[in-house]
Amino acid sequence: MRTIDETHAPELTSWVEGADSHPDFPIQNLPLGVFSHLGGAARGGIAIGEMILDLAALAQSGLLSGDAQGAAEAASGPTLAPLLEMGRLPRRALRRAVSALLKTGAPEHERVDMMLVPMSEAQMLCPAHVGNYTDFYVGIHHAEGVGALLRPDQPLLPNYRHIPIGYHGRASTVRPSGTPLVRPHGQSLPPGSDTPYFAPTQKLDFELELGLWMARGNPLGRPIPLADAFEHMAGITLLNDWSARDVQAFEYRPLGPFQSKSFLTSVSPWLVTVEALAPFRQAQAERAFEEPRIPAYLFDEGDQANGALSLTLSASLASEAMRAAGIAPVTLGSAGASDMYWTLGQMVAHHTANGCALETGDLLGTGTISGRAPDSKGSLMEITGNGAHPITLPTGESRSFLEDGDEVILSGHLHAEGWRSIGMGVCRGTVMPPVMRS
Amino acid sequence: MRTIDETHAPELTSWVEGADSHPDFPIQNLPLGVFSHLGGAARGGIAIGEMILDLAALAQSGLLSGDAQGAAEAASGPTLAPLLEMGRLPRRALRRAVSALLKTGAPEHERVDMMLVPMSEAQMLCPAHVGNYTDFYVGIHHAEGVGALLRPDQPLLPNYRHIPIGYHGRASTVRPSGTPLVRPHGQSLPPGSDTPYFAPTQKLDFELELGLWMARGNPLGRPIPLADAFEHMAGITLLNDWSARDVQAFEYRPLGPFQSKSFLTSVSPWLVTVEALAPFRQAQAERAFEEPRIPAYLFDEGDQANGALSLTLSASLASEAMRAAGIAPVTLGSAGASDMYWTLGQMVAHHTANGCALETGDLLGTGTISGRAPDSKGSLMEITGNGAHPITLPTGESRSFLEDGDEVILSGHLHAEGWRSIGMGVCRGTVMPPVMRS
Repeated sequence: MRTIDETHAPELTSWVEGADSHPDFPIQNLPLGVFSHLGGAARGGIAIGEMILDLAALAQSGLLSGDAQGAAEAASGPTLAPLLEMGRLPRRALRRAVSALLKTGAPEHERVDMMLVPMSEAQMLCPAHVGNYTDFYVGIHHAEGVGALLRPDQPLLPNYRHIPIGYHGRASTVRPSGTPLVRPHGQSLPPGSDTPYFAPTQKLDFELELGLWMARGNPLGRPIPLADAFEHMAGITLLNDWSARDVQAFEYRPLGPFQSKSFLTSVSPWLVTVEALAPFRQAQAERAFEEPRIPAYLFDEGDQANGALSLTLSASLASEAMRAAGIAPVTLGSAGASDMYWTLGQMVAHHTANGCALETGDLLGTGTISGRAPDSKGSLMEITGNGAHPITLPTGESRSFLEDGDEVILSGHLHAEGWRSIGMGVCRGTVMPPVMRS
Repeated sequence: MRTIDETHAPELTSWVEGADSHPDFPIQNLPLGVFSHLGGAARGGIAIGEMILDLAALAQSGLLSGDAQGAAEAASGPTLAPLLEMGRLPRRALRRAVSALLKTGAPEHERVDMMLVPMSEAQMLCPAHVGNYTDFYVGIHHAEGVGALLRPDQPLLPNYRHIPIGYHGRASTVRPSGTPLVRPHGQSLPPGSDTPYFAPTQKLDFELELGLWMARGNPLGRPIPLADAFEHMAGITLLNDWSARDVQAFEYRPLGPFQSKSFLTSVSPWLVTVEALAPFRQAQAERAFEEPRIPAYLFDEGDQANGALSLTLSASLASEAMRAAGIAPVTLGSAGASDMYWTLGQMVAHHTANGCALETGDLLGTGTISGRAPDSKGSLMEITGNGAHPITLPTGESRSFLEDGDEVILSGHLHAEGWRSIGMGVCRGTVMPPVMRS
């Protein structure tokens, strides 16, 4: 269901200062998050400009009623899970009520103003406890690019165009943006050697990904049909699946990546809701006629027509020296969600096709999204050809992979002709030196 | 720490009828579980013979004090997580107190008898919510056997003797023994074809595994040293990681098994505690001198001396026709935990070596354990050579892989010269026909 209503109107403006010109959080967005204000109890909030609307305060204000009131109450605690479990109608009611309260000329303006908290005073947490984290591999240009480096004879494996390839990731180490990344240890093979050593990774990388938060799951043995997939989604997030490429190369056969990725996965704190995405849904990119026929459980006309997103993701980097010199981060790569071979809906349908149970708060990553062009790669492994072609930063520093002190910043923006663009905020992390081992 | 005390004495007997002759649950075992009696509220219990000691009732009885009382209170709810988080001292105090209450001649005999529930009237649940499930691959004969079928040129990959290879499994579909297994759908390649089809798996298999429940985890970035690993463990369980081999063969490159295993993982309900294991810990099997040097984080003298277990695991099968004819299950294979190339401690040390956080209630599987001998294989893929050499059941039925109606039963027993043997109970599951898809 792709419902467009008055909350999406491009001419809609807000009385909140700066919201109308904000690149990410105008009144058309209204993403959900969990925050703590000056160390207070964690609770749900909605971003508007550089402010956060406190949903616990709103729930106690008497300004809401019905479904919207129930939704605000469910979002008053330290996790949004109770809200996500409710289904889409209460979330949509909350969105419409909040939009009416925040729009220019709202009579409740002064009362609502008291419930706003500056983002600069808030600490953002994860929107929900991550019960299970799955990472897919739907960025076909990434799969081809990395495949060519690891398996020059067979970059894209025979299963790729038949199955949304994915793997189970580590749920316990998903953390909100800003969590420092301590350079992990692991076993790697020195070039040309068959004797591995255990040491801090020398090939630390980022991965530019889109994440999906699940709202409602499914019982064991009851797959989610592709046509229903959007009804089970809560919204999207930026996701950085930090990777140790030298550890990955040595460990990944035959059971896939494990210690090369399980040390940290960072997510942006704002969940951009399925409701906010409505104007930015679009048809899946057309596939060349020689592509294999899609199996029935992965085909749905609605998904083909509007299961993809008009979304651009970007990754940028600022070294310690750049920050010290006041030099702005440099963009490493920008890719479009149209570079996804499979849609978010197809990921959900495949994940549950064998009866696997998804749960509220599950996080699904797309895997790295890269385009075809050299400036559209979502990992340093692709950008530098596994270190063979280092890049040069504005300070003259060279980078094959991430160095201690480097900060990686992901961002994402949705855009569609005739609609107000919205953004996803940022997902950032800075590399810290490894902890010494005795 | 390998503490042997009066609870392990082989001459100890219990007043509970049948406990002294019970193959699994004599007074020396005292495993923990969560049960519901006749539909009542779920709570912790301890197995003794064919009875369950109700820990919620015990906590209210006034018979305990100090650490033991605190432990019983923590075990009174629907998950043992609060007990597992407490550390080993309270669990050991509870074990000693319960042993004293259940031993022959205990003066509290009549009062404790009122707190016993027959297993036949109880439904067993999982001991804790599984936050994260990881499956390793430490059964070296299994790795070689399956590797030879999938990669005849390179059965054992170069990393195997350096790294305890593992992968993240699906936590949301771990279920207690007895949960029916609905034959899952998936994509597979017909032999000789490169066009996959989506259908119920034709190669449904079991995996005979040992599982490990974690008691206390570790903070992000703070590895658990091998020498401390046992302090973080709660105990062991039987684990059947059901697998769809045809789906696995098509999907597993490059990210590992996903839909071929995520439909169900079964565990036995009784957690055999680290305390009960003390007499059965033994030295790791000696490795041939040409083995690679173990990296420092995977070497500890205590682990080498008593990090392995004197444990035999068995898998047996009863077809629907066998059950109808009253024919007992046939043993498919029996293997020893000495066939593990890495210890449970090495699994924990490796898992956290990159800073990954483990959590209370995490479940770690060993992967399939097989021996060298033909009658010691822990999966049908190995037993039948991927279906090439079917086995014949007592009814004359033939089996390449599991058929609808087949029941698989796992069991495990710990034994050591001079000590009373203890068992792990059973982990069972019956294959149900696939759900038809439109």
